[in-house]
Amino acid sequence: MLTRIDHIGIACFDLDKTIEFYRSTYGFQVYHSEVNEEQGVREAMLKINETSDGGATYLQLLEPTREDSAVGKWLAKNGEGVHHIAFGTPDVDADAADIRDKGVRVLYDEPRIGSMGSRITFLHPKDCHGVLTELVTSAPASTSEH
Amino acid sequence: MLTRIDHIGIACFDLDKTIEFYRSTYGFQVYHSEVNEEQGVREAMLKINETSDGGATYLQLLEPTREDSAVGKWLAKNGEGVHHIAFGTPDVDADAADIRDKGVRVLYDEPRIGSMGSRITFLHPKDCHGVLTELVTSAPASTSEH
Repeated sequence: MLTRIDHIGIACFDLDKTIEFYRSTYGFQVYHSEVNEEQGVREAMLKINETSDGGATYLQLLEPTREDSAVGKWLAKNGEGVHHIAFGTPDVDADAADIRDKGVRVLYDEPRIGSMGSRITFLHPKDCHGVLTELVTSAPASTSEH
Repeated sequence: MLTRIDHIGIACFDLDKTIEFYRSTYGFQVYHSEVNEEQGVREAMLKINETSDGGATYLQLLEPTREDSAVGKWLAKNGEGVHHIAFGTPDVDADAADIRDKGVRVLYDEPRIGSMGSRITFLHPKDCHGVLTELVTSAPASTSEH
């Protein structure tokens, strides 16, 4: 069961400049940053608010580390902008299986590792009215590193 | 001061079909629907979670009521997908003035009426790393109609 907007993923050409835009314009701070080599991105999470399911909603700023990554190809085609949206769930495996059974294409056979040790999968945007949609289960608090 | 993600605005060709997708795939329900003739949209708000500032985060599904509306033109160019993101604030006037002073183009001279009697304005996407960005102050609870 999806219980929150976990984050909005925003693709950018220059992570540092984009972080500075969100800081100087709105006052948002970097909560966490990392490089995810599997996804081919350097990313920063800006925490915007906490949510009624005990989680939080972030902006996730994404700069590709290589042109042939999914985000790199998307940026080359579309330019900067909203790349995907992500719903939080306590059980990404169960939700992914349930959604696959409804005929929506789930892009990974098994969830992979996302921001802050979360487990993630994606749904095909053509099956979701044009929206690349991610499902996220946060890491247990004890293993989440900032 | 921006205190939450208020909503993610998603443009679609057929509002009823898109509502049905979000209901049957994820179980999300319509919290509110309306036609905004000024914006040229028929819309549905799906409440996803409540937020730590006392508000909530919604998906806002948008179908244009006319081809020459902003959303109609955007859909013709881009197809279905994420159209904008919106931050909630207690004082859209003050935040819009502050952000304008920083050199970001604010699209309206004065805030206009958005979903559920809110007051809204937009920031130019070219000044926001490609993201059409809305600022929203909710209507007082007593005047908000579902």
